[in-house]
Amino acid sequence: MIESYVVVHNIAKRHNVGTLARSATAFGVTEMILVGRRDFNAFGSHGSTSHVKFRHFHSLADARVFLKSRDCDICGVEITDNAVPVNEHPFKKSTAFLLGNEGTGLSAKECEICDFFVYIPQYGSGTASLNVTVAASIVLHQFGVWAGFSERTRDGNKFVVAERQKQVRRNYCAESADSIIEERRSRRENASNGFFDESGNEVSSSNFLGALFADD
Amino acid sequence: MIESYVVVHNIAKRHNVGTLARSATAFGVTEMILVGRRDFNAFGSHGSTSHVKFRHFHSLADARVFLKSRDCDICGVEITDNAVPVNEHPFKKSTAFLLGNEGTGLSAKECEICDFFVYIPQYGSGTASLNVTVAASIVLHQFGVWAGFSERTRDGNKFVVAERQKQVRRNYCAESADSIIEERRSRRENASNGFFDESGNEVSSSNFLGALFADD
Repeated sequence: MIESYVVVHNIAKRHNVGTLARSATAFGVTEMILVGRRDFNAFGSHGSTSHVKFRHFHSLADARVFLKSRDCDICGVEITDNAVPVNEHPFKKSTAFLLGNEGTGLSAKECEICDFFVYIPQYGSGTASLNVTVAASIVLHQFGVWAGFSERTRDGNKFVVAERQKQVRRNYCAESADSIIEERRSRRENASNGFFDESGNEVSSSNFLGALFADD
Repeated sequence: MIESYVVVHNIAKRHNVGTLARSATAFGVTEMILVGRRDFNAFGSHGSTSHVKFRHFHSLADARVFLKSRDCDICGVEITDNAVPVNEHPFKKSTAFLLGNEGTGLSAKECEICDFFVYIPQYGSGTASLNVTVAASIVLHQFGVWAGFSERTRDGNKFVVAERQKQVRRNYCAESADSIIEERRSRRENASNGFFDESGNEVSSSNFLGALFADD
């Protein structure tokens, strides 16, 4: 089965991590891998999400070992000399996409763990590069097209969002028992990983994505 | 010659207009068309830009007349029943992309001026739709791939940004005389359209994109 991962190394802005999480879940990303800084409460104080699984590593080397155990290629998103336009779909199997810091892009050390690179062709003269979340979203979109992922069910003009635990308790459930169990397991793991402020407050913990997504 | 336009109707958030302008210039958009609300100083107080041309209409009908005079199709970006996945490239000629308000998407009235619709397939369960700027950027990327736009020159890991007037005065210029003249004309027009606060302050007027883009 083809999977995608997003690897984030020292992304600085809370807003970018939020929008990134939204695109990751839209494009069926298996896990977001956070490497380096562990002060994630900077964006986690709203609570946790049951829709995106986060995993943390202290070093790029550790992240690489994990991703190789999942038989992933590691693809840097950067305008390097040997980078391939993402619309040419230079993919072979499950792939983890490494994003650099907003200001500086991928460092030499980050490039070292990559198996190959993609970039997004630009045509105009007004900016040297794209917003990091926009770039990541385009890459995830193109990977999904290449992988032939199954499209999510739609209801009118919106894709159907999986019910969250709070709504399950209201006895309304559009998901299978399996996905509810998986969702609860994922919530517990995200909480025990310490990424988010799981204070036990039901409202805040169920409103993480809501709070992030309210801004657009 | 194939061109693209972005039509924005009552987009509410300053941050989204900024990121949208950055993607628009990256993907070679000819003009951003703003329809409806004219309180653009909400995002214009940083000064003006010479890289993206803005045009304003009071009504969608007026915008449609203008776009048809440019021989454009009008493509709504929305998950409608008859929308085509954007990766299938259902384009025929120059195209203007209509984006709706962040919260509500395209209204019935907005849909009426569209010739066809595209949407971005989603695969995961965590969000009903994408951030409006992310969605627009993916569509502009795919349109550029379809149109075969010429790629912008690169310098190392960045695309080359056209020099702005301030830098021209420093006697360093990577652009032709024609593009400088065009740039100055565009600055004057954006200013006279009243979209931006052109106070004559050289620093603020040359730093509009810089201020917008500093946030990512």
